[in-house]
Amino acid sequence: MLYRLPFLLAAIPHALALWPIPRTLKTGTDFVVLSPQFTVTVNVPNPPQDLLDAVVQTKTFLATDKLQRLVVGRGSSDAGALQTAKALPSLTLTLQNTATHPVLPIASEAVKDITTRSEGYTLSIPSDGTAAVLSANSTLGLFRGLTTFSQFWYDYNNVTYTNVGPVSILNDIPAYPYRGFMLDTARNFFPVADIMRTLDAMSWVKINMFHWHIVDSQSFPLSLPQFPELAQQGAYSTSEVYSPADVQAIVSYAAARGIDVLMEIDSPGHTEAIASSHPRPPAGQLRLATPSVVNFTAALFNAAAGVMPGKYFSTGGDELNTECYTQDAQTQSDLKATGQNLEQALNTFVKATHGALAALGKTPVVWEEMVLEHNLTLSNTTVVMVWISSEDAAAVAKKNFKIIHAPSDYFYLDCGAGEWIGKDPEANSWCDPFKTWQKSYTFNPLANISAAQTHLVLGGQQLLWTEQSDPSNLDPIVWPRAATSAEIFWTGAKLPSGAPLNGTEALPRLHELRYRMVQRGINAIPLQPQWCALRPGLCNIDS
Amino acid sequence: MLYRLPFLLAAIPHALALWPIPRTLKTGTDFVVLSPQFTVTVNVPNPPQDLLDAVVQTKTFLATDKLQRLVVGRGSSDAGALQTAKALPSLTLTLQNTATHPVLPIASEAVKDITTRSEGYTLSIPSDGTAAVLSANSTLGLFRGLTTFSQFWYDYNNVTYTNVGPVSILNDIPAYPYRGFMLDTARNFFPVADIMRTLDAMSWVKINMFHWHIVDSQSFPLSLPQFPELAQQGAYSTSEVYSPADVQAIVSYAAARGIDVLMEIDSPGHTEAIASSHPRPPAGQLRLATPSVVNFTAALFNAAAGVMPGKYFSTGGDELNTECYTQDAQTQSDLKATGQNLEQALNTFVKATHGALAALGKTPVVWEEMVLEHNLTLSNTTVVMVWISSEDAAAVAKKNFKIIHAPSDYFYLDCGAGEWIGKDPEANSWCDPFKTWQKSYTFNPLANISAAQTHLVLGGQQLLWTEQSDPSNLDPIVWPRAATSAEIFWTGAKLPSGAPLNGTEALPRLHELRYRMVQRGINAIPLQPQWCALRPGLCNIDS
Repeated sequence: MLYRLPFLLAAIPHALALWPIPRTLKTGTDFVVLSPQFTVTVNVPNPPQDLLDAVVQTKTFLATDKLQRLVVGRGSSDAGALQTAKALPSLTLTLQNTATHPVLPIASEAVKDITTRSEGYTLSIPSDGTAAVLSANSTLGLFRGLTTFSQFWYDYNNVTYTNVGPVSILNDIPAYPYRGFMLDTARNFFPVADIMRTLDAMSWVKINMFHWHIVDSQSFPLSLPQFPELAQQGAYSTSEVYSPADVQAIVSYAAARGIDVLMEIDSPGHTEAIASSHPRPPAGQLRLATPSVVNFTAALFNAAAGVMPGKYFSTGGDELNTECYTQDAQTQSDLKATGQNLEQALNTFVKATHGALAALGKTPVVWEEMVLEHNLTLSNTTVVMVWISSEDAAAVAKKNFKIIHAPSDYFYLDCGAGEWIGKDPEANSWCDPFKTWQKSYTFNPLANISAAQTHLVLGGQQLLWTEQSDPSNLDPIVWPRAATSAEIFWTGAKLPSGAPLNGTEALPRLHELRYRMVQRGINAIPLQPQWCALRPGLCNIDS
Repeated sequence: MLYRLPFLLAAIPHALALWPIPRTLKTGTDFVVLSPQFTVTVNVPNPPQDLLDAVVQTKTFLATDKLQRLVVGRGSSDAGALQTAKALPSLTLTLQNTATHPVLPIASEAVKDITTRSEGYTLSIPSDGTAAVLSANSTLGLFRGLTTFSQFWYDYNNVTYTNVGPVSILNDIPAYPYRGFMLDTARNFFPVADIMRTLDAMSWVKINMFHWHIVDSQSFPLSLPQFPELAQQGAYSTSEVYSPADVQAIVSYAAARGIDVLMEIDSPGHTEAIASSHPRPPAGQLRLATPSVVNFTAALFNAAAGVMPGKYFSTGGDELNTECYTQDAQTQSDLKATGQNLEQALNTFVKATHGALAALGKTPVVWEEMVLEHNLTLSNTTVVMVWISSEDAAAVAKKNFKIIHAPSDYFYLDCGAGEWIGKDPEANSWCDPFKTWQKSYTFNPLANISAAQTHLVLGGQQLLWTEQSDPSNLDPIVWPRAATSAEIFWTGAKLPSGAPLNGTEALPRLHELRYRMVQRGINAIPLQPQWCALRPGLCNIDS
C-alpha cells in the first residue's frame, strides 16, 4: 500500500534473459526456433563424462524450462514470427588449444588454483538455419558456455525459441576468478539435497565457489573419522550430520558444475560445539594457548582439509573474545608457562593450523580480524575475507593480502529480519536494513583500491548466516539476490555496451533469471508484482 | 555474527506446545501415552460430516506429526517415563445444550454473524488411564477443542505421548470474535492449493477469518459469470484465475475448518485491473462520479458477494487519489451534471455499493480512510479496518464504528524487504522495519480505547501484501509470525496464570508451533538456531 501505480512510458525493449550478462555480446532481433531434431555435437576427443552429463542437462533444460517470455501475453505476440523463423539444427562444442591444455573433466578444472582456471568461452547462435558453435579452452569453459546457451530459450505452445538471434559472444571470460556463495550449516542444518539444489542454482549464474561454513558454536555436523566424537556430541542429532560420504558427494556434485568448495572451520572463536565433547572455556572458544589444544586443532584441520580436493580452506578467525582468555585461569597459566602473551599465543596457534594446511598444499583463508586486529605472521599467500564493512578492504589491501569481498553492508543475505536473540521487541538485526538486490548491485569491488592493488581483489560472494534460516526458506532468501554478486564478479564494471552496471538495465534480466529458476524448481522470491515483471521498466520510478 | 553465545541459566521448564494458549489451563507433569487402540467417540446425534472429517484429521495428526520434543536429546530422556506411563484409551466428544443450540455443520457455525459464533470448549486429558473428554456448545467449539488436543502430543521412537498430564481446560473461549489473516492475491497470484494449505495452517491456531484481498490494480483474477471480461482481460493469464468453482472450493475448505471468508474488492481506488476491460482515468481508479460506473460497481458487488455464504464483505476504500479526479475532465463534467462535489459523489458511490451488500444481508467492511478522511453516510453496522497506524484506532472508536485491527506498524508481514518500485538502491519498504513476531506480540488491542468503547473492538489480523511474495515464499513469510495475532485475539491480555502476555514466556511455545507446522508440511521459518529451540530461554538476553 501507500504507492501510486506508475506509468512510465520509457519501456525497455527486448529484455535478455542472460545473467550474468556476458562481457561481450552481440544480439539481433531474429526469431530462431529449436529444431525438433536439435542435437548437441561434442567435438572433443575422449570427452569426460561430466561434460557429456552437462550436455544432457542442457538439453533437458531446453525441453523443460518452458519459460514463457516475460511480456504481456507471455509470448502470444510471437506466434506469427515463430511460423517463419529458421530452426537451429544443432550446437557444436569444440575445444581449442588441446595441445597446450589437455582435456580434463570439468571437476578437475573447477578445483584448480583460482588464478589458473580457464572459464572463458565463445558462442555463436546464427539465425539462418546453420549450427550454433560453442568453443573454449577447457571443459569448464564449455560448461560456462552451455549455461549461457540455456538462458536464451523461451517456450510458446511447446515451441522452444529465442527472439534475439543472431547471437555472438566472443571470449566471455570472468572479470574476477572468485565468485562465491557462503552457507552456514551450523546455526541450522541443511540436508545434502538442499545443498545440492543450491549448487545447481549457483551453477546457473556461474558462481564457482561454495564457501561451506560447516561448523560453529551451535552445532558441529561434520563427521570426521579421526574425531568422531565431535559430530557425535556436537551435531543437533544423528540425522543432522555430514558423513564423509556426504561431504564427498557434495564436493563431486559441485565440481561437476564448475564449483569448488571452500570449507571453513572457524577458529579459535565460534567453537562452542566442540565443547560438547571437549572441555573449553566458558566463552565458547578454544584454549588457544594450551599446546595440546594447538595440536588438536592442527590435527582437526589436517583431517578436514585432507579429503578436500580444492586448494583453499578457511580457518576463520573472526570475533575473538580476548577478555574471555584474560579471565581464564588455565589460559593465563599456559601463557606464563610458554612465555607468551595472548597475541603471541594466537600467532603460534594460527601458524600451527595454517602449517597443517600448507603441508597439504592448501592456501589458508581468514576473516579480516586476523590481519586488521591481530599482529600475526601470516603467509603472504593467505586470502583475507572482508566482512565487517566494505570500507575495510582498503586496509587489507594496504597490507598486501589477497581479498575476497564479503561485506555485511552489501552482501549479507540474512539482515533485516529482526534480532534473533534478546528480549527487545524493537530490536533489529545488527546489520539492518535488509540488503536488497538493488543495494548489492551497487557494490564496487575496486572502491578505494589503487591500480597497483587491483590484482589483490580475487572477487567476492554473498553469504547466508542461518540463525533464522533453514530449508524452509532457503530458496527465497538466497535467490535471486545471491545472483547479484555473480554478475558483479563475472561481468565486471561495464555492460557489453560499455555503460556501467545499473539497476534499471539489470532488473528485467533479473526477473527473467528469477522466473527461469522457478521453472527449474528453485523457489526464488518474486521481486515485484508480476504486472511489473511483464512490463520491463514500467515500475521504475523514484520512490 | 557480532554476538556472544549466551548462557543464561534461567531455563524455562516444560515448554507447552499450545498456541494460542487457552484462557484457562491446568497441567501437570505426568507422562501419558496414546493407546495403540486410541479411539475418538463422537457422542453427537447425527454428527455432521465435517465434524467426522475433523476427527479423522485429528487422528491423522496424532499419528503423523511425529514431533520430537524440543529439548536436548529430542525426548530420549523421556524414554524411561514412557515405560510406566498410563495409556489414554480414548477421547469422547459431546455437545452441550443441544436443545437450545441445534447441531449444525462446522461450516454453518463458522459463517454466522461474528458476535453469535460459539467457539468455546472444555477439555480434560487425565493421566490415570481414563478417557479424555471434549465438550462444547457447538460443532465449531468441538473443532477448536480438537485443534488444542492435537497440540499436546509428541513422538519418541513411535510412541505418541504428552508430558503434561493431567490437563484441564475449562471453557476456553476466544477473547475476540474476529481473528484473521489477509492474503493479497492480486499483486501476485496464489493457486488454490496454496490458499488451502494456508487455511490449514490458520485453523491450527484458531484463526477464523480469511480476508481475501482478491483483486487490485495489478490483476483481477476473480472470474464472475456476470462480468467475464474482468478476469479475461485483467488476470495475469488464463491459468491465474479463480473460477466460481475455485471460490466455492476455498469457501467450503475454509468453513469446514471454522474459517469464514471476508472477500474484498477494493474500490474506488486500486482498480486499474478493471481498466483492462473498461475505460478508466489514468490514476487507476473508478470514475466514481459517473452514474453508469456507480451502477456497474454496485452490480459487481452484487455478483461477487451473492455467492459468498458469510456475512461480511469489504469494499476497501483506501488511498483514494482525489487529485486524479480533479484532473479528469469526465469526472468534473459528471460532478457538474449531478450537482455534487467529489465527497458527495463518493458518498453516492459508497451508498450504492454498500446498498448492494445490504440487499444481500451482508455487513460492509471498509479501510479507515472511509471514516477518517471522508465524510460519508455509512451504516453504523459498518466495520472499519485500521491499517495506517495502530494509533488511528482511537479515532475510529470515537466515531462509534466497530474496529478490526490491521495496523501496518505491528501486523504487516511484508515490511522490511526493500522498496519494490523505484530506482533508489538505498530505499527501504515504506513500512520498515520488518515486523518481528516479538514486535507484533506487544500489540495491545485496547490501547487508547475506553472501557465504554471496548465492545467496538472485534479483533484483528496480520496481513501479507504480495508485491514481493508469491507461492515461492508464502509459508516462511507468513508462519509462524501470523500466529502472533491469533494468540493476542484468542487468549487476550493475560496468560492462564494471570500474568500478562510476554515474549519470554511465549517463545518456547512459538518454537513448538513452528516445528509442528513443519512436520505438517508448512515451511514455517525458523526463529532461531535450533540450539536455542532445544534450550528454552537460553538465548534470551538483552541485545
